[in-house]
Amino acid sequence: MDHPAFERHRGGKMAVVSTVPLSTREDLSLAYTPGVALVCEAIAENPALMDDYTWVGHTVAVVTDGSAVLGLGNIGPRAAMPVMEGKAVLFKQFGGVDAVPVCLDTQDTDEIVSIVKALAPSFGGINLEDIAAPRCFEIERRLVEALDIPVFHDDQHGTAVVVFAALRNAATLLDRKLCDLRVVVSGAGAAGVAVTKMLIAGGVEASAVIVCDSRGAIHAGRADLVPGSAKAELAERTNAGGVSGGIEAALDGADVLIGVSGGQIPERAVAGMAPGAMIFALANPTPEVHPDVAGRYAAVVATGRSDFPNQINNVLAFPGIFRGALDARATRITEGMKLAAATAIADVVAAELSADAIVPSALDPRVAPAVAAAVADAARREGVVRA
Amino acid sequence: MDHPAFERHRGGKMAVVSTVPLSTREDLSLAYTPGVALVCEAIAENPALMDDYTWVGHTVAVVTDGSAVLGLGNIGPRAAMPVMEGKAVLFKQFGGVDAVPVCLDTQDTDEIVSIVKALAPSFGGINLEDIAAPRCFEIERRLVEALDIPVFHDDQHGTAVVVFAALRNAATLLDRKLCDLRVVVSGAGAAGVAVTKMLIAGGVEASAVIVCDSRGAIHAGRADLVPGSAKAELAERTNAGGVSGGIEAALDGADVLIGVSGGQIPERAVAGMAPGAMIFALANPTPEVHPDVAGRYAAVVATGRSDFPNQINNVLAFPGIFRGALDARATRITEGMKLAAATAIADVVAAELSADAIVPSALDPRVAPAVAAAVADAARREGVVRA
Repeated sequence: MDHPAFERHRGGKMAVVSTVPLSTREDLSLAYTPGVALVCEAIAENPALMDDYTWVGHTVAVVTDGSAVLGLGNIGPRAAMPVMEGKAVLFKQFGGVDAVPVCLDTQDTDEIVSIVKALAPSFGGINLEDIAAPRCFEIERRLVEALDIPVFHDDQHGTAVVVFAALRNAATLLDRKLCDLRVVVSGAGAAGVAVTKMLIAGGVEASAVIVCDSRGAIHAGRADLVPGSAKAELAERTNAGGVSGGIEAALDGADVLIGVSGGQIPERAVAGMAPGAMIFALANPTPEVHPDVAGRYAAVVATGRSDFPNQINNVLAFPGIFRGALDARATRITEGMKLAAATAIADVVAAELSADAIVPSALDPRVAPAVAAAVADAARREGVVRA
Repeated sequence: MDHPAFERHRGGKMAVVSTVPLSTREDLSLAYTPGVALVCEAIAENPALMDDYTWVGHTVAVVTDGSAVLGLGNIGPRAAMPVMEGKAVLFKQFGGVDAVPVCLDTQDTDEIVSIVKALAPSFGGINLEDIAAPRCFEIERRLVEALDIPVFHDDQHGTAVVVFAALRNAATLLDRKLCDLRVVVSGAGAAGVAVTKMLIAGGVEASAVIVCDSRGAIHAGRADLVPGSAKAELAERTNAGGVSGGIEAALDGADVLIGVSGGQIPERAVAGMAPGAMIFALANPTPEVHPDVAGRYAAVVATGRSDFPNQINNVLAFPGIFRGALDARATRITEGMKLAAATAIADVVAAELSADAIVPSALDPRVAPAVAAAVADAARREGVVRA
């Protein structure tokens, strides 16, 4: 506990503050009783006034069950709290969103769904975080159906948005079209599934994508896939060539490798990729392929780390996405809003593209406002907003 | 909506802030990944480190189901939010406690209990608020049993603590002993039940207390009381004389009236009280007896309102009680801690007592620190603290 991170965490990383004065008797009578009763009565009559007269309109819950925290795995709700606080303060710093960490002492799907439904009146949006696959898919689906506020599993969609932004810029830089690329996604957890769907929604041919899990390439002939599961769906839509075998077979001749697995990929596997390849090795802290090795075979290399170029970091996405969704009073976050976010991120550096700068820096102050504006516009255009 | 309370509520009354710098790449690497992982791992190994390295150690959830909000009744979780935000900012202003409003979209006892249990890892304490009786009694009892953090229903115990502090000082001023007083409590909801228990714990004779509900005096002969209920328990312990009938019969010759009912009490009823009476008419915004009327018959008059002398306001209690409980890492809030809080509140003005100043002002900055110190001491003395 002598690492400087501990000193930085002493007492936690966040606090609540009042935004109204509370110094005089009159202050109390306006912010609390009796004045507050008028505001309560007005909201009881017209619940939409919540957006104007409570903090709910700018507030997000960061909800986890502690089952898949960073690269640490199932460490439970208590040990997950520092990550959720970190997420919350990034929400504020970059998006001006007031986020509250909610670490739940249950990993039961039904229970998580019913708890978040019950919590919903207290928040303007729900950011699901670090919940293990495949449970995360069902939890998100059921909450999106049940609630009229945005619900967003960041490990899936935040990652997918930034990966897509990076791929768009890398393809532009290399003068390649998305629809011509052969893509391998290594990892079929929350991030892998969402990245794959987003790439396809954004213009990559589904037939030209191969997703690999720990047993190798996912293809329609695999007998171990649970019918109706996310992987079974991938087997139907992707890998039209029916490639089987391990990552080396999948990567043979591929243009793009997106690693979201946490595992290691041997050099000989990436050596078989097509010339001018793109490698995004996003596992933290140890990328699937070390960037120095990847650089021998690829024209563009990205990682999840801040100490190498091209950091694919969710912080480029989630603060602006929720800021925009809250600004528009969006009822959900659609594919169109996510694509708009990815485009906005990519556009921030479009005029200054280089192999070492396909995405903006995590600290670039232009990103969140651009994402927020694009997301809010998309929400209004699609009409997924409260009256 | 032209009342100034609305303008004061625009955008809500609170915000979240980061307490760590987030401006540089190094800041992010300490507050978030990769540095945060070390802190998570340390907590996974030793959950007690949460108190030191997360905000949980100074955080309280203000939990309601919106079923008994102020004098407004069952207005639901959305309309309750302004009150919960108000409570939260008072927690911060007076106790330095970071409080988060949690308005639940359910009024089912089992569901509320299981939700709050699941939320518990995220907070250092639970302040239950504006939950209707008798449900509030069971919810609190079950949560106190299940959790090792303080759980406190403020409508019950916060009110009881301040009422007891006021009664202690009023009795001192009038040179009366608590054990000699005949007390009538009008109202047998959350506050009435808790006030009665606290007065008895503090020295008032149970036999000399009469509690009235909407049907009149509660006595052992009442056929309408549910066995095992809070009212049935009151019938057993109080009103040894078996007084029956309405509030007028109960008040005949009484020394103290404590109104926590919301109803009106006619002048002819208080006219029958003993000379030198004490009347605490705490209903908001309309006291059970107008202070001008009460003053004709009583030597000391208190209300819940800030525009009359002797405001009995929970804000004198809850910020300091939770501050003290969190400082001591208390696992519960005991009767002893509540009595210590009441004594500390009373002592703040003990040297300057007058009929118009039996309790400190709600804005008196001496109160919360004194309460916190007394509560923390009591917790340590009783050994109800985490290792």
